[in-house]
Formats: sequence, structure tokens, C-alpha cells
Amino acid sequence: MNYPKEIRINEMVLRDGLQLEEKVLSVEEKHSIYDSLKKAGIQSFEFGSFVHPKLVPQMANSGELFTEIAQDAEGIELIALVPNLKGAQKAQELQVKEINFVFSASDTHNMQNVRKTTEQSIEELKEIHSFSKESGMKLNVTVATSFGCPFEGEIPESRVLSCLKELEPLQIHTVTLADTTGMANPKQVSELMSKVVSEFPQLDLGLHFHNTRGMGLANILAGIEAGVTRFDAALGGLGGCPFAPGATGNVCTEDVVHMLHSMGMETNADLSALLEASASLEKLIGHPNKSYILKAGPYDRKYPVPELSN
Amino acid sequence: MNYPKEIRINEMVLRDGLQLEEKVLSVEEKHSIYDSLKKAGIQSFEFGSFVHPKLVPQMANSGELFTEIAQDAEGIELIALVPNLKGAQKAQELQVKEINFVFSASDTHNMQNVRKTTEQSIEELKEIHSFSKESGMKLNVTVATSFGCPFEGEIPESRVLSCLKELEPLQIHTVTLADTTGMANPKQVSELMSKVVSEFPQLDLGLHFHNTRGMGLANILAGIEAGVTRFDAALGGLGGCPFAPGATGNVCTEDVVHMLHSMGMETNADLSALLEASASLEKLIGHPNKSYILKAGPYDRKYPVPELSN
Repeated sequence: MNYPKEIRINEMVLRDGLQLEEKVLSVEEKHSIYDSLKKAGIQSFEFGSFVHPKLVPQMANSGELFTEIAQDAEGIELIALVPNLKGAQKAQELQVKEINFVFSASDTHNMQNVRKTTEQSIEELKEIHSFSKESGMKLNVTVATSFGCPFEGEIPESRVLSCLKELEPLQIHTVTLADTTGMANPKQVSELMSKVVSEFPQLDLGLHFHNTRGMGLANILAGIEAGVTRFDAALGGLGGCPFAPGATGNVCTEDVVHMLHSMGMETNADLSALLEASASLEKLIGHPNKSYILKAGPYDRKYPVPELSN
Repeated sequence: MNYPKEIRINEMVLRDGLQLEEKVLSVEEKHSIYDSLKKAGIQSFEFGSFVHPKLVPQMANSGELFTEIAQDAEGIELIALVPNLKGAQKAQELQVKEINFVFSASDTHNMQNVRKTTEQSIEELKEIHSFSKESGMKLNVTVATSFGCPFEGEIPESRVLSCLKELEPLQIHTVTLADTTGMANPKQVSELMSKVVSEFPQLDLGLHFHNTRGMGLANILAGIEAGVTRFDAALGGLGGCPFAPGATGNVCTEDVVHMLHSMGMETNADLSALLEASASLEKLIGHPNKSYILKAGPYDRKYPVPELSN
């Protein structure tokens, strides 16, 4: 297997990562996480979402955060999640340059998430597409529950492929398939992504995995082997969807970066600086995060040799 | 990728799994773990080790345990770890039918483990080989730190291959390569195991991974893709080597089985029964274990759909 030279990481901790945390972080606290990640070389962030503050109070200060961090974001992509046109309008008012519209391949999950069927959300996407084109905002799309739904169970490949087909006339090129509650396995990833890569060669494809069932890193490798080079991940492995039962953390950025680097792939990230960011994050959220590497250290960590007693 | 139809699991919880636990389990408690695993279809166990009881007190009752479980072990492999000839003699006295001799590819780790260089341990292996042949015990070999040493760092592939070369004249056919402190990555596993499989086609090869850096499942897949079909794993992901700093749990049996089954591979294990065993294990050891599936449930777990409030 010839692995690609470079993998792009899209950092989700400020959005997906924090939205399940009990503690609502202040703009200042979020800003410090952003700074530590930027210092570690992260160049792409989903920094927050424009959703109803009553539904996801952890994201209520996303606008304020953007206004602060946008002042020092040369060469950095700052992406806002929007669930609907209203969110896109809010993003535009704040001069956000890039939005990520999320809808779900599962009708049931989409209904729980945004009170619409998948078809209705795709209709709304068309409006958002026109609006973002007029406003000069870049529009990305994430298809949630692409690898399974906690309510419906299996999502047929044909369902995901037909969702992608609907995006073609809109010429949306940046699309992420999300395993919202960590149901995917590497064989499934390999099979679906091989089809997606060959049927939609024009797409800049990303994958979004949760490590709910421990297969996050294996799924990333399966994605890479199928030709995908962009992955969402969250510092400390935090995260989960508030409207998907059983949701747990995203794949952990520092663990992903550690694996990729140990296998000879590059990211723009510095692992030591990421581990510092991860340790600071634990202090902010007030509980241990889910990073293996923060606990164990990188694979090349050496220990002093104890003297033998005999 | 055509995956093999069946993967064999060798259950390590009674040996590697328990040897780092603070609480020393009684024969009765260990027996109950054995029974729950046997009920779940596990057919191969490393049930304990014959090492000095002062060095690893958790294993001091391995002999008593064997005497009990051997009475009802039709079709089950019961394997004892032995670090030296004395251990092999002890096993033989108790009428153990299968032993696993462990030495380390790293001199420094081997010295910490058994106060001998690798070469000295291989010399001792020759004696054990003669002894076990005379006694009619089956002899397996595990080469520890095959993917890296916590003291020496990188272990060159040539070192592992030359260890295996030394086993050839002894006609030992069941050999396991162990990633004792979870330093391996999937690329490394793929590269080393492809060489081992092609240079030593006569071997029944196994792999032993720890999930120290979160790559355990990905490493297993890399091993399967290289042609390996036998894997060590421990219920609840317990375990670690007492003489290797930074050692943490083995790959978790129920998480391994869940991944393999979800990818269409078979084991002889029943996942629901394994999860029951895992829940009972937590009660015995008095702290949560490391299983993802015990927490999240299998990938096909479905949740009831909440009523929408509007």
C-alpha cells in the first residue's frame, strides 16, 4: 500500500467536541483552545455552529468567538456549521467565509436533528446554495449518519450515493460523509468510499468518524486506502451529537496525527504542541479527555532502564 | 480485500490481563471468568504463568486454577506461560499440555523480564524444547517487543527475523509476535508480517497487540491483511507487562470480536455472552474495564425514536 504523502485534518473540537460538554465554555476559553491548536499547526477549524442557542447552549457564543479569532486567521479556514438557511444568514451577517451545511442520510435522524425529512433539508440546501453564492461564502456539505443511524440502523449505500447525486447540479465540491454515532467498520468504509471516489471524482471528500466502538483509527486507514485525504477530528477525542443517542467522542486529533506520522504520512500538525493543547483542554473542561497519546506518550518514547537488583 | 472466513482468538485475560491488577483474584474468581468465557465460545486460553510468585503474585495460584479448569476442558486449549525451564518443569508436574515460552527480541527488555540476554533465553529454549518433547507438552513461543522496546526504542526487522530463524531447527510451529507495550503501527505490522509470512511459511503465526496508543484494532486488521489469522486478546482490554514501563491493556476481546463480526469474519465467540462476561469481570476487579462495546453496545444497536416536541 502506497499511502499519500499528506493528510488534511479539520479540527472539530470547538464545535462537535464541545457540544456535549456539560460546562459551557466562555469565548475566552474557546479562544485559548483555538490559539493552542493554531500554534500546533492546525489550519482548518469548524469553530462553532449557528443553531438555536436553547437547543445547543454550548454554541451560543460562536458568533463572538468568530469575531475574535477571525482577526488573526491568516491562512486558516474557519468553518461554521449551519443546520438551515437562518444559520447561513447569521453566518453571513458575521462575515463568516465558509459554512458547512449538515443534513442526515437518515430521515429519522434528520427529523430529530432539524425537524425536517432529508428531502426537505436538501430543498433547503438549494436555497442556502443560492444565498451563499450571492454572499460569496464557500459552502461545504456534510452528510450525517452515512454509515448507519442509531434509530433506523443500516443506511443502504444507495441512499448515500443518491444524496450525493442530488448535490451534483449545485456544484458543491467539498463533501464530508459522517459516521455520526460510530457505527462504521473498516470494510464498510472501504466499500462505500471506493464507490463514492469512483462515481464522484470531482469531489473533495472528507470523512468524519466517531470512536464510539474503538474503530475510529482503523476506519480512517480504510478511508485513506480508498483515496480520501481529509478527515475531521477533535482534540482530546471530545464530542458527539446531542440529538443522536449513544453518541460519543470524535476520533482524537492527537491520536490520529500520531498514527499518521508514525506511518510516514504528514500533516501540518506538531504532535508535541498538540499534546500541550490536549493537556490544557483537560484543565478547561475539568475531566480527563480520551487521548491515548496524552496518557502513553508517542510510540518512540523511551524509558530509563531500571537497575537490576541481582 | 478478501478477508479470511475465520479468525482464532487466544484469550489472555487470566494471564496478561490480570497480572497488572492490584487486586489478586482467587482461584474461584478466576474460575468464574474462565467459565463465562468458555460459555461465550472461547476455545483457547493462556490461563496463567509459572513465574516466581514474589515477582508476579497475581499468578501464584495458576497451578491450582489449572487443576480445577482442566477437569472440564474438552476441546479447549489451556496454555501456561513459562519464562524458563523451571516454569516448564512446574507445568509438566501439573500435567499442563501446552506451554508458551516468552523471550524478548530486545536484550534490555529480556534482561528486565528474566535477567538473561535474548541469546541466553534462546539457549534455554533449546533445553525447554527437549524437555517438553520428552514430556509430550506442546511448546509455543512468543517473541516479546517484536515491534519496539520501551527501553531500546526501535527493534529492527532483521532482529525479529533472526530470532525466528533460530527457532527453525527446533521445529516449533506456533509462534506469536508480541507488541508488548503497544508501539506498533499498521504500516509496520503490514511490512514485518508480510516478510515473516513469506520467509516462514511453515509457522502458525499469531499476533499479540496492546492498545496503548489506540491502534490495536487497526494493527489486527493490518495483520489479517498480511495473512495472520490468530490473535491474542484479553476480556475487558485488561493487562500489561509488569516489567515494561508504560504497558497498558491488551486489545479487548469483545471489541476485537465485534469488529471482526461486523466485517463478516467469524470467530467461535458469541458477542452477547462475551459482554456478559465483560460486565461480570468489572465487578470482580472493582473498576471499569476498557471495552468500547460494553459501553456503547454493538453497531446494530437501535434506539427508540423520541417524540418530537413540536
